[in-house]
Amino acid sequence: MPSSSTYKKPVISTSVIKRLPRYRRFLRNLRADGITRISSKELAHRMNLTASQIRQDLNCFGGFGLQGYGYNVDDLYREIGVILGLDKCRPTILLGAGNLGKAIARQLDFNSIGFDLIGIFDKSADIIGREIRDLTVADVATLKEFCKTHHPEAAILCIPSSQVTDLADMLVELGVKGFWNFTHCDLVHRYDNIAVESVHLSDSLMTLSYHLNDSGNTKKK
Amino acid sequence: MPSSSTYKKPVISTSVIKRLPRYRRFLRNLRADGITRISSKELAHRMNLTASQIRQDLNCFGGFGLQGYGYNVDDLYREIGVILGLDKCRPTILLGAGNLGKAIARQLDFNSIGFDLIGIFDKSADIIGREIRDLTVADVATLKEFCKTHHPEAAILCIPSSQVTDLADMLVELGVKGFWNFTHCDLVHRYDNIAVESVHLSDSLMTLSYHLNDSGNTKKK
Repeated sequence: MPSSSTYKKPVISTSVIKRLPRYRRFLRNLRADGITRISSKELAHRMNLTASQIRQDLNCFGGFGLQGYGYNVDDLYREIGVILGLDKCRPTILLGAGNLGKAIARQLDFNSIGFDLIGIFDKSADIIGREIRDLTVADVATLKEFCKTHHPEAAILCIPSSQVTDLADMLVELGVKGFWNFTHCDLVHRYDNIAVESVHLSDSLMTLSYHLNDSGNTKKK
Repeated sequence: MPSSSTYKKPVISTSVIKRLPRYRRFLRNLRADGITRISSKELAHRMNLTASQIRQDLNCFGGFGLQGYGYNVDDLYREIGVILGLDKCRPTILLGAGNLGKAIARQLDFNSIGFDLIGIFDKSADIIGREIRDLTVADVATLKEFCKTHHPEAAILCIPSSQVTDLADMLVELGVKGFWNFTHCDLVHRYDNIAVESVHLSDSLMTLSYHLNDSGNTKKK
């Protein structure tokens, strides 16, 4: 099994990457249940995948399974964490401390998955100065100075779409390398070599609407 | 172009379905900019797709484009809404009015995309009785009676994972046909003919972490 130090990252399809956190969730549950090893067949059964799909997915990263033994749950859980970069501690800022921004700041255990929330910014006088977690919401007017001092690597965007591109362009200039985008803006193709992961809540709810209309004719994801 | 009345829904791949809300977002922006017609080539350029992919996607639903004319923006926007079922008004309940549930209840314009939020439930005495939008958070103990009277069609799950399966099983028995799932539970394969759309926020953030690690080597979604 490749160690985190020797691990070399190949180019992997987005669909495989998007399955890795799900593998990790199932492995975390297995660990919680005290299961120390599992066959690809049994893991496939629990995840409603095929054993060969699991082997193919994990082989993208060099395997990890042993013929006749299966997977060591702890090792695979840890290695997937390394592949996902969860062993990092990326300084991260949140823009927009409205209902959603506040909920995200409070809901997620950022440090356990490689992010360190170091600043929260808003433009509304009603929100600036409020305490969220261990942070005080700062005026977005101070964002530039903050970035020059603290060099955030990632930014969470929970601001109105109209404000997104200007702020995102500025953050990229200031060295931000990735956005977690909750706005309606499509930032994915705006920048080169900037990671963008979008959560379009309305799109997701519309997809549910389609499936409800379709009364289960389509494959659910 | 098929009208909403004559429109027959075929079986479509999940990936095509998941692109429909994005088409709709771009079309909404075109309408806002006063653009009334657009070629598949121009739409492809704006959406960073290929013209043939757009034609293929929309042909799944019977086309809509006219050779040499392109797409009528208003008509396509409206038809995609019909395909997604956004013309409905599905009675919907929200379980879990903590930070995330509260934010979702307040953030989304449910009625504009086919859902009608008619009840919010929680088990915490601190939260029961609070006002969110025009609704008063009710005790989850009253959920069963509420469902028998008001017949919700969809449920939004913002509750701790430990409470999910019991409540979801009960709601399915009571006639709920779809879940918008914000929990860590994997409900997708638990039921037949129940629509499940999941938003796993941690999974999404882990995917961003991978892309940050990968410094843009992988295709971004």
